[in-house]
Amino acid sequence: MRGILPFPVSEFTERLNNTKRLMEEAGIEVLLVSDPANMNYLSGYDGWSFYVPQMLVVIADEEQPIWIGRKQDANGAKLTTWFHPDQIIPYPDEYVQSAGRHPMDFVSDILTQIGQSNRRIGVELDAYYFSARSYEQLKIKMPNTRFIDATLLVNRVRMVKSDQEIEFMRRAARIVEGAMREGIRSIGAGVRECDVAANISYAQVKGTPDYGGDYPSIVPLLPSGIKTCTPHLTWSDSRYRKGDAVILELAGCHKRYHSPMARTAVIGSASPKLKDLAEVVIEGLNVTLEAIRPGMTCEEVERAWRKVIERRGYFKDSRLGYSVGLNYPPDWGEHTASLRLGDQTVLQPNMTFHLIPGIWMDHYGVELSETFRVTETGCEVLANFPRELFEICEPPLAAISVEESGA
Amino acid sequence: MRGILPFPVSEFTERLNNTKRLMEEAGIEVLLVSDPANMNYLSGYDGWSFYVPQMLVVIADEEQPIWIGRKQDANGAKLTTWFHPDQIIPYPDEYVQSAGRHPMDFVSDILTQIGQSNRRIGVELDAYYFSARSYEQLKIKMPNTRFIDATLLVNRVRMVKSDQEIEFMRRAARIVEGAMREGIRSIGAGVRECDVAANISYAQVKGTPDYGGDYPSIVPLLPSGIKTCTPHLTWSDSRYRKGDAVILELAGCHKRYHSPMARTAVIGSASPKLKDLAEVVIEGLNVTLEAIRPGMTCEEVERAWRKVIERRGYFKDSRLGYSVGLNYPPDWGEHTASLRLGDQTVLQPNMTFHLIPGIWMDHYGVELSETFRVTETGCEVLANFPRELFEICEPPLAAISVEESGA
Repeated sequence: MRGILPFPVSEFTERLNNTKRLMEEAGIEVLLVSDPANMNYLSGYDGWSFYVPQMLVVIADEEQPIWIGRKQDANGAKLTTWFHPDQIIPYPDEYVQSAGRHPMDFVSDILTQIGQSNRRIGVELDAYYFSARSYEQLKIKMPNTRFIDATLLVNRVRMVKSDQEIEFMRRAARIVEGAMREGIRSIGAGVRECDVAANISYAQVKGTPDYGGDYPSIVPLLPSGIKTCTPHLTWSDSRYRKGDAVILELAGCHKRYHSPMARTAVIGSASPKLKDLAEVVIEGLNVTLEAIRPGMTCEEVERAWRKVIERRGYFKDSRLGYSVGLNYPPDWGEHTASLRLGDQTVLQPNMTFHLIPGIWMDHYGVELSETFRVTETGCEVLANFPRELFEICEPPLAAISVEESGA
Repeated sequence: MRGILPFPVSEFTERLNNTKRLMEEAGIEVLLVSDPANMNYLSGYDGWSFYVPQMLVVIADEEQPIWIGRKQDANGAKLTTWFHPDQIIPYPDEYVQSAGRHPMDFVSDILTQIGQSNRRIGVELDAYYFSARSYEQLKIKMPNTRFIDATLLVNRVRMVKSDQEIEFMRRAARIVEGAMREGIRSIGAGVRECDVAANISYAQVKGTPDYGGDYPSIVPLLPSGIKTCTPHLTWSDSRYRKGDAVILELAGCHKRYHSPMARTAVIGSASPKLKDLAEVVIEGLNVTLEAIRPGMTCEEVERAWRKVIERRGYFKDSRLGYSVGLNYPPDWGEHTASLRLGDQTVLQPNMTFHLIPGIWMDHYGVELSETFRVTETGCEVLANFPRELFEICEPPLAAISVEESGA
């Protein structure tokens, strides 16, 4: 019944062994993995079923993990995971969003039945989709268990990518180039924001003729006009007006691997203050990318950026970027390393980051970002797209020329 | 700085008053609302920032709620909420995904400063985006607080829609009709799954000339071939083959309000067993919709369905549907009432449900669903789309005719 796995089984077992090594260091005998990205990473499981509780149970001294989830998703687990179908344990639908029963009742019954409830159990306390109630319920049902916080344990294993993972991110970069081109091409005075978002979504999901697009973990972030003073507004059905700036923060996604990228455009000519801010952001981005070397800390990367913008009289009080790769909604970040003061994570080859030097003032803002891979000698920027503030002529540009976009 | 609110302020304050009434019944003096749909419902707040902790604080004896979130999102809160900007309290970026600090440290400091930490505080223990760690951290920082589980408290207020909310769901229904038409039109042997998903996404986000599309809380669910034995697989870049069945479960979304709909198509002629299953599902769907009256319980609705399919020798062990409306990823369901055995929720006018009679066998399945509103005398199906198993001729249909689709 199994479908085609995106990685060889040996890559999954290596990931599992790396996870078990970290479990041992943390004194964890049984790990409950609820984060859908971590579940996918260790098992291959891929489905939009994370809106109900589900998990992977990794037992230190057992070869294959156990998948526990809703009954109607069990066939999906059989189709997308690498391990034996007997490892897939479905819970009945009565446990779903029900007053009398909770899925964690089922989970603790299973753990008890297989003799694992008295061991040291790791739980991802700060992961999405492992609710406070889930934890409370486990504690009630397994009073003798010693629970250990295993937040980010698997995320840390994910930080250094394999060559196949990098290849998926490069494909995602091809996709985001197309989506960004499509977005900037279609912005213009009188155009509805949702029409631009539709063109971007189309390009993101279609992908290239060679690689299909997967759904990005974040929808297009498209603040315009006054709304560019904040990064996470999406779109409306109102129409752009001449003079509006538009920030586009998008990702390409292929087999759940992301390459995000941001650019800023303006309809007509940019005001001097917007131009000045964009110049600073672009210079800071370029200088930072030039400075990156394996062996540097995340904090040092941020310092390179800070020096440039401080000289120009600017200041950014939010982090400069974060580790990125495999993920599910609501985030494409990995929640491990951040490019900011105090983060001592050391850059290693095949780590990947979204470097996003956005600056938001009270009534306007600029974002230009790149996703990069740390190489043996520096960094590789995954996408190839001009780093500029795009001034959109009227009527809208028919297309950004192929030479200009570098595609 | 405020943008255009989707509802009059009086509608927001009415929602808040209804919430406070339920708080009083539950003995809750301060309610921490983390579910993004509940936050939007009470405040208007709309941004893709729920990947970091944020909340609305509703204090029983204070007129306006407080928004607490990340600093870079505070301007977004000022632009999209109805209350005074002084009610918006941002936390610095050092709290974001940081080893040393947690956003709930900030939240408890604020609650303590404003004299609310010794009261009875309601928390949404089983909501998305309120992690187990968040709850643990609140308990550590506010040891004298009595916490009360307030899961679904606001969701219950959301169940009966206002006329404006119904209007948004009707617009979402127009959008899903277009997206479904586009999906079925573009399926064919040799076509990539991602190309069909791209056409659907385009139609969902663009919306109609009158109403823009918003992003649905669930991406198109598009299992095909063997994968139709399970409902929550998305798409790949492989190509459809002649004989493949394809399930399309999609929603239209307008200003965060959803109208979901599912249909099943087959490339070529359907096999007798697929035809038989589709007939049963369609008959069951029609009979159930005919039976619905205000005053019935959710359990009684399910019984109408069960009688039809049992007579035909079929059985469905998962719920038949659920309350639907306003939401954010990962779900468009409201998590309150389910159409299933044991659910005694009484149907009232302007409640809205997604009635989704999917049946998944071991190697195939059929879904046809409708979103309905309970009326004074029965129900109103929001979308207008033929209820049939679509047999797709080769080459792909140019379009489903306007007469047939009823649009």
